[in-house]
Parts: sequence; C-alpha cells; structure tokens
Amino acid sequence: MDYRPEDILPSISTDNIIFGLDNRKLKVLLIRRNIEPFLGNWALPGGFVLYNEDLDMSARRTLQNMTGMSNVYMEQVYTFGAVNRFPDRRVVTVAYYALINYTLDNLKAGPDASDINWFDILELPDLVFDHQHILETTLEFLRAKVRTEPIGFELLPQKFTLTELQGLYEAVLGTVFDTRNFRKKILKMNLLMPLDETQVGVAHRAARLYSFNKETYHKLKDKGFTFEL
Amino acid sequence: MDYRPEDILPSISTDNIIFGLDNRKLKVLLIRRNIEPFLGNWALPGGFVLYNEDLDMSARRTLQNMTGMSNVYMEQVYTFGAVNRFPDRRVVTVAYYALINYTLDNLKAGPDASDINWFDILELPDLVFDHQHILETTLEFLRAKVRTEPIGFELLPQKFTLTELQGLYEAVLGTVFDTRNFRKKILKMNLLMPLDETQVGVAHRAARLYSFNKETYHKLKDKGFTFEL
Repeated sequence: MDYRPEDILPSISTDNIIFGLDNRKLKVLLIRRNIEPFLGNWALPGGFVLYNEDLDMSARRTLQNMTGMSNVYMEQVYTFGAVNRFPDRRVVTVAYYALINYTLDNLKAGPDASDINWFDILELPDLVFDHQHILETTLEFLRAKVRTEPIGFELLPQKFTLTELQGLYEAVLGTVFDTRNFRKKILKMNLLMPLDETQVGVAHRAARLYSFNKETYHKLKDKGFTFEL
Repeated sequence: MDYRPEDILPSISTDNIIFGLDNRKLKVLLIRRNIEPFLGNWALPGGFVLYNEDLDMSARRTLQNMTGMSNVYMEQVYTFGAVNRFPDRRVVTVAYYALINYTLDNLKAGPDASDINWFDILELPDLVFDHQHILETTLEFLRAKVRTEPIGFELLPQKFTLTELQGLYEAVLGTVFDTRNFRKKILKMNLLMPLDETQVGVAHRAARLYSFNKETYHKLKDKGFTFEL
C-alpha cells in the first residue's frame, strides 16, 4: 500500500506476533520484506502507525496488508523502544500477538510483503531489527499466560482430543507432561465438555472429542476460580 | 528541567502510576502541572521521551523530575495511543507502574511540577488527557496481578501483621475478606515467615509480625507453584 509521508507518524510502529499450531509444533507467521531497510529479509508483519488510526487499528491494518489476514483478534503485549533498535532514527514499536487455529492452505503474502511463511519457533531464520527479541519476549508472555488462563484453547479446533490438548501445551511450553497427571489436572477443572463424538478417520480406538466450556469458565472465574496448569 | 526541542521525540511519552498504601487505603501519586497544556491541573507524573533514552529510562527520569523519587522499580503496563488522546497533535504514551511502601513525610514536588500529593483512588480530582482511563486500566491490571503473583507485599513494610496484609489486599481489590479464610489461604502457601517479634506500640494482645519469604517463593515457582488468592 502507498501512504503519503504526511499520513505517517514516523516514530511509532506496530508489530504482530501470530502464533499457530501445526502437528504439535508451535509456529510463528513471518513475512519477507519488500521495502528497505532490510529488503528481502524475514520479519514480523507490522509497520508505521498512521495519524488517523489507533494502535489496535494499525496492528490490524498492517497484518492484513502483509498477510491478507483480517478479523484476527490480537492483544497488545509490550512496547519496545531501545534507542538503537531501528537504523538511523528512533522508532518505538508496540507489539501485538494472537493465537490462531491456522490452516496452511490459504497463506498468501499481502501487497506489503514479497513472501510469507509459518516458521517453527525452534527453527527461525535471521530476523530484522530487534524482532528476535520481540518474539522471545512475547513467547515468555504467552508461556506465563497459558498456565493461568485457558487461552491455549484458541489454537485448537472447536472439537479436540485430550492428546491434541496435551500436544498444544507441550508445544507452547516446550515441555513434556505425564499424560495421566495432565488429564487428571485438566479434567478436574470441569472446563471440558465430553462430546458424544470420537475422532474421524481413525479405525481403531478412536479417541473421544471434547470442547471447551467458555460459559462455565467465565462463571467459575467470577467466583474467584483461577485456571492453573 | 529544560530540554532543547531537538532532544525530544515529540510523539512519544511515558506516564507513571505510583501506588502506595496508607492506613488500608490504596492511593496514587499525582502532580500538578506547571506547563501548558492544562497548566495547574492534576496529572500522572510523566513526560516526553528523549532521543537518547530508552523507555524505561524516560519513565524513571520523568518520575524523578516531577516527584523527586529515584530508585523506584517500575514495570511497563500498557501503551495508550487513541487518536485524540492529546490536544492538537498525536502523542502515544507508554504507561509504567509501581507499588511502593510510602511515607507521606518526604513528599515534595520536583522541578517539573508545582504540587504533589497522594490521592485515594476512590476520591480522585479531575485528571488531564486520558489519565483517568490510564489509571483505571492500570488498576485493573494490578488487581489481576495481585491475585496470581505476590507483588502486593511490596506495599507493606518488611515486617507486617496478618491484619495489615489483609488490609492491603482489601484496599487493592476493593473487597472484604473473611479473616479466617484469608489467613488459612495465605498461611497454607508457606510464603510467610513468622518472626519472634510482635507489633511495637501496642500494649495488649500485640499481633505477631511476619515477613515474606522471597527465596521460598522463587523455589516453589520454579517447581510450577502458582500464587493464588
């Protein structure tokens, strides 16, 4: 997209950290830059804030222009403003993050990027600016948050098996849980609804599907319940 | 303090929300502005970021210049950037907060303020810009955080009674706890060390003093323990 220089607040940008889960691996969405500085390098999708938009709007717009994705619910994480984080001049960036349940099929770079891909968080390419640091900080934030709030469920389809749920937590936290203890702990919180359905496409011993009971969670939370894993 | 215009990044500021506890009341530190816009009005202490300082440094410097306070450990909370939050031009502000164990005695406005005072969070004066909104958002953040991390202890002296501790949580959360349940819950976490000392200046039934065992907390936390109140 082309913006007139006078429309751009030159010192403030937003950057977006979009996490997705693929076969028990936690991935992050990166784009290849089609402008200087660092043309052709991998980066978090983001860009300068316009004078006429709020920070949340800027995060949504830049994500859409770089990835084609719209309607992604993002949350502000942290603002990064080290003096030398950007070359030649001062730019402070407000980081936003989202957890999404992605499919790789419809991934296509938007007009403000030349390429786009999901990367395993353990196998990242070199990133521009301080994007590696931003990503690591956001990952720490995510790890703390999935232990005390049931946000992890957003990475799964609506109906999931307990094995998939455990795989999600193992991928995000970079750890391995004892299956029996994990199931006991998660079922005890009464947040999962067992469905009268089992996995599709599995001939033998298809596992039961569950869904997350948001209503119950909010009711319990209002009474002082804390999710803890 | 006088800064040359060329030293100032005009579009980014930091604002500081300093909470203190006074006789079971949660208070916030406000200053009276000695510059335009809104000269003479009450505001959160803060100001523009300089080109040669990080955001954390800016928060510490502006706090010191307005309140005389140094060595206050502050943490970034959230960044506010609504299009019209500042008159005439665009300013995005990064909010920092701290909990301190204050005494009213040595409170004195710094060079960048004309007056300074602690205000009960339930009896605030009119605040400039979106400072009311920033304060409310930070308070929500604080309330969520004191339930899952033992940060509340920073508002108390090193040695405190269980009554003082309960008063702290009641002031921050704006609620009343059942004394027996509160004590049972907090003692069960094994984070308090009973001291061989009792309250000073109380003739009859002086209460036992406790201190917070940070070392134990960090050990338990590493093992997956979550503080929960």
